[in-house]
Amino acid sequence: MKLNAPYASRISGPGIALPAGRRERHRAEIRQRLFDEALRLFAQKGYFETTVEDITEAADVGKGTFFNYFPTKEHILAVYGGKRVAVVERALDQARATKGPVIDVLKELASNAVGQSNQNPGVIRAIYAAHASCAPVRLELQKRLQVSRRLLAKIIALAQKRGEIRRDLTPLELARVTQIVFMGMTMSWSMNPDSSLRKSSESVWNLLLFGLCAPKEAKGS
Amino acid sequence: MKLNAPYASRISGPGIALPAGRRERHRAEIRQRLFDEALRLFAQKGYFETTVEDITEAADVGKGTFFNYFPTKEHILAVYGGKRVAVVERALDQARATKGPVIDVLKELASNAVGQSNQNPGVIRAIYAAHASCAPVRLELQKRLQVSRRLLAKIIALAQKRGEIRRDLTPLELARVTQIVFMGMTMSWSMNPDSSLRKSSESVWNLLLFGLCAPKEAKGS
Repeated sequence: MKLNAPYASRISGPGIALPAGRRERHRAEIRQRLFDEALRLFAQKGYFETTVEDITEAADVGKGTFFNYFPTKEHILAVYGGKRVAVVERALDQARATKGPVIDVLKELASNAVGQSNQNPGVIRAIYAAHASCAPVRLELQKRLQVSRRLLAKIIALAQKRGEIRRDLTPLELARVTQIVFMGMTMSWSMNPDSSLRKSSESVWNLLLFGLCAPKEAKGS
Repeated sequence: MKLNAPYASRISGPGIALPAGRRERHRAEIRQRLFDEALRLFAQKGYFETTVEDITEAADVGKGTFFNYFPTKEHILAVYGGKRVAVVERALDQARATKGPVIDVLKELASNAVGQSNQNPGVIRAIYAAHASCAPVRLELQKRLQVSRRLLAKIIALAQKRGEIRRDLTPLELARVTQIVFMGMTMSWSMNPDSSLRKSSESVWNLLLFGLCAPKEAKGS
């Protein structure tokens, strides 16, 4: 008996991630295409100026198809934000596993954020405009920022436990500070991509890390 | 011979600021009213959603009157930005005159910025949205940021000269860092005014100042 590919993939058993079957692959492809085209159009025309029809036309699918993948246009932003949270989640895994300094994981997270935003300042600007102009979008942002903040705080707590970061401030407060600095870096770069964000972010981080370190360590650095 | 008021004010001589005559006072009042109503409407409806007619109606003047005071709607944002630059200018004057630590002037500048934005998060959001969405507005922002950065750098250079701030980084680079942190603070507060920006900004500043101080001073603090 010959198994066709999708069936073969479906019998891999429960609890194991299925290799994407043909249909799932097709769905994932369309979803990705809609997402990519949406971001491209947000950057080009602006978030509010882009209609769902613009997106489906650019992705070469019927208009109604969009809603099989995203309940609303705002959900594109939510997915984008979710990807950012996933990056912090992976950093926490790294921080738990690393034998080196936890603070290096934080540093990598910073340059990762800059690297990500380097890809398209227009996307970042469109996303900021959408957040600044739309209360429900802002509410979603707050939820994601809270999740990220708790993850960041866990990383910072690990670094505190190892004596890499000063202990007189709570991990959550330090995580909030880190987020504020992140936001300023991404924002100011997206407003003026000609300026070297990478260079500035290094300066900011070096200053911030100096403040984060316990006075004893700071003196030695 | 009896001089009429405008003429009397006009003969005060060159190089001396004229006491505002009745006509000038009237003009200044209308200009201020247009400016205030514009900001109020930006916060309420959004920058792009607010028309010049909305503004003139709210300010109770004819539509054409707007253009006697502001060439375009964007100029409202420029005036707003100009007021921010003026605050930094005054801080530089203070830094030059003070007998106390120059770093206190910087600290006051930080809490001033927070106090200012406390007045209306909606205005800040509308302004960010306008900058994120509109290239000419962004260009103006860059010019103003450059002016502010140079002023900040002068304050920082004074503090370096007095040994209050580390000298291994250039004043301009430290000024850029300061602006990035400012932007992050104002932005994150405008997105979520419920959170205590004042408290967070204090944490950020304490950490940043710790990094700014020369290692010797930092250790002692």
